[in-house]
Amino acid sequence: MKKFMNDPHQFVDEMIEGILAAHPDQLACVANDLRCLIKNGHKKKGKVGIATGGGSGHLPLFLGYIGDGLLDGCAVGGVFQSPSAEQMLEVTKAIDSGAGVLYIYGNYGGDIMNFDMAAEMAELEDIKVQQVVAGEDVASAPKGEEGKRRGVAGIFFVYKIAGAMADSLASLEEVKRVAQKVCANVRTMGVALTPCIVPEVGKPSFTIGENEMEIGMGIHGEPGIHRGPLLKADEIIDQIMKRILADLPYKKGDEVSVLVNGLGATPKEELYILYRKVQQILKKEGISVFNTYIGEFATSMEMAGASVSLLKLDDELKGLISKQANSPFFAQLQL
Amino acid sequence: MKKFMNDPHQFVDEMIEGILAAHPDQLACVANDLRCLIKNGHKKKGKVGIATGGGSGHLPLFLGYIGDGLLDGCAVGGVFQSPSAEQMLEVTKAIDSGAGVLYIYGNYGGDIMNFDMAAEMAELEDIKVQQVVAGEDVASAPKGEEGKRRGVAGIFFVYKIAGAMADSLASLEEVKRVAQKVCANVRTMGVALTPCIVPEVGKPSFTIGENEMEIGMGIHGEPGIHRGPLLKADEIIDQIMKRILADLPYKKGDEVSVLVNGLGATPKEELYILYRKVQQILKKEGISVFNTYIGEFATSMEMAGASVSLLKLDDELKGLISKQANSPFFAQLQL
Repeated sequence: MKKFMNDPHQFVDEMIEGILAAHPDQLACVANDLRCLIKNGHKKKGKVGIATGGGSGHLPLFLGYIGDGLLDGCAVGGVFQSPSAEQMLEVTKAIDSGAGVLYIYGNYGGDIMNFDMAAEMAELEDIKVQQVVAGEDVASAPKGEEGKRRGVAGIFFVYKIAGAMADSLASLEEVKRVAQKVCANVRTMGVALTPCIVPEVGKPSFTIGENEMEIGMGIHGEPGIHRGPLLKADEIIDQIMKRILADLPYKKGDEVSVLVNGLGATPKEELYILYRKVQQILKKEGISVFNTYIGEFATSMEMAGASVSLLKLDDELKGLISKQANSPFFAQLQL
Repeated sequence: MKKFMNDPHQFVDEMIEGILAAHPDQLACVANDLRCLIKNGHKKKGKVGIATGGGSGHLPLFLGYIGDGLLDGCAVGGVFQSPSAEQMLEVTKAIDSGAGVLYIYGNYGGDIMNFDMAAEMAELEDIKVQQVVAGEDVASAPKGEEGKRRGVAGIFFVYKIAGAMADSLASLEEVKRVAQKVCANVRTMGVALTPCIVPEVGKPSFTIGENEMEIGMGIHGEPGIHRGPLLKADEIIDQIMKRILADLPYKKGDEVSVLVNGLGATPKEELYILYRKVQQILKKEGISVFNTYIGEFATSMEMAGASVSLLKLDDELKGLISKQANSPFFAQLQL
């Protein structure tokens, strides 16, 4: 296991200590718990708070999207583990300004259970809570069973757009509505080339042959839909795009935002070679590209691989995705 | 070789095609050459143009810093190869607005030779050119021989600050002066855990044992100063910081900007564990941190490893580093 670390059992806490030390003006922890993080500074009166949470090992997910025009707080779990309901509640209490709190998180059992519990506890403290569960990995469940799909990199779009909506002082119902609209219009599929190692485990949880790839693998190594020899970049994108385009389906005349996400160890050079083919296919299909995000948005530590997400846009979503945003891990000027 | 690519011989051109397709509003090529890139849009009359260049395989270096408040153009070479003098000249001609052009590039033989030649050719076309060669890797040559040092991630600071200065419509001499000031005040040292593979070669150019690291290795795999068993993160940072701090030397009361750079395959989680110790050491030394940059700023494709750079700041540099900047690979709001 070749990682820069000290004690594997301190991996997450030392990481958070580093993050807080690096960005003291932007982030703070509450309840004397390093794993309960919020945006530093004054709460904007009347602004809906947005909280997320999930396991560590996916930076910038999840805490990396706490920032202006994005999220207000995050409960941080161990590597690939859900944070507790109590931690989520602490974050909820810290970020509520009276307008209520929206939970946005990925479709994983532990997170759902704990966020549900946190929402109930928050209601007891007179905090209005609504929830949106993101799941858009087309490889994880067939069309018609969208509710079973894993949440992967596409959650970035939900954060970005709900964050911009909340910033406009929209109501909890309105922020929830737009977050759900994003969920309904985003689709993702990924491919993995190598596994990653959970520090406390010390060895890969699965293996992939030296010349193999697995299409559709999840960001915790969940099984994909096809394992086989490593294909050329264009062939991989052909397969991925075929599934994504057919799923929504995305059609001629649609306008999309495209996210090509690196899983951690894949260089940006390769992500752009992948995007080249994505763009060629979209052009051929008559689908226009509004804007692009290419880089690491949802990772699995040192896993090599990538995913492609498409978000179908309408005028409302275009307006919101264009807004300025700023966190220690993601900055965008007004488009 | 597990890379997302098609033909290894098309690796660079397909990457650039992807970049131009993804960021058409921000980037364009000139002279019908994909490898001659400039900022898209109108030239600002009276603004000094800043050009860089260098081998591919280091994204965001070099072309990734073409943007507002940053660079105006870049000549792109093959993987780890210098672009030609002719390509540099084309970029120079395209970005000159009459106020002259500053070349900023790393201290490598091929780049120096070609930029020198380009500068001579530009003078013949009545374009004023000045050059600043960045080299700050303390592992690559001893103190007293600073002119022999390799340029690595610290060149980001030179781009950022010279870019902000040029944006204020300062003269060529002034932009050069501030770029030189950054070079004089920045120091870097790195550590590598794994090699990378040049696509056209197909195999690693060197090996590092399964439990080994090499401190001081360059971003093309140039030999470092110590190879040995992989130490704990804190121990590695102790060694790196000792060398960096002693070299300038950085002293109690100094104020610095800190860059913790990932070489490509190292997850952000680990970079923050490294930063945690950097910050502890700076605090102990009485050196204060003005701001931080943590992520991938100068890479070696899929090489695992990291580097630490410190820039000693004065009021002028603080003002310039705080300015807004925006490129497809780097965005910063006004600090």
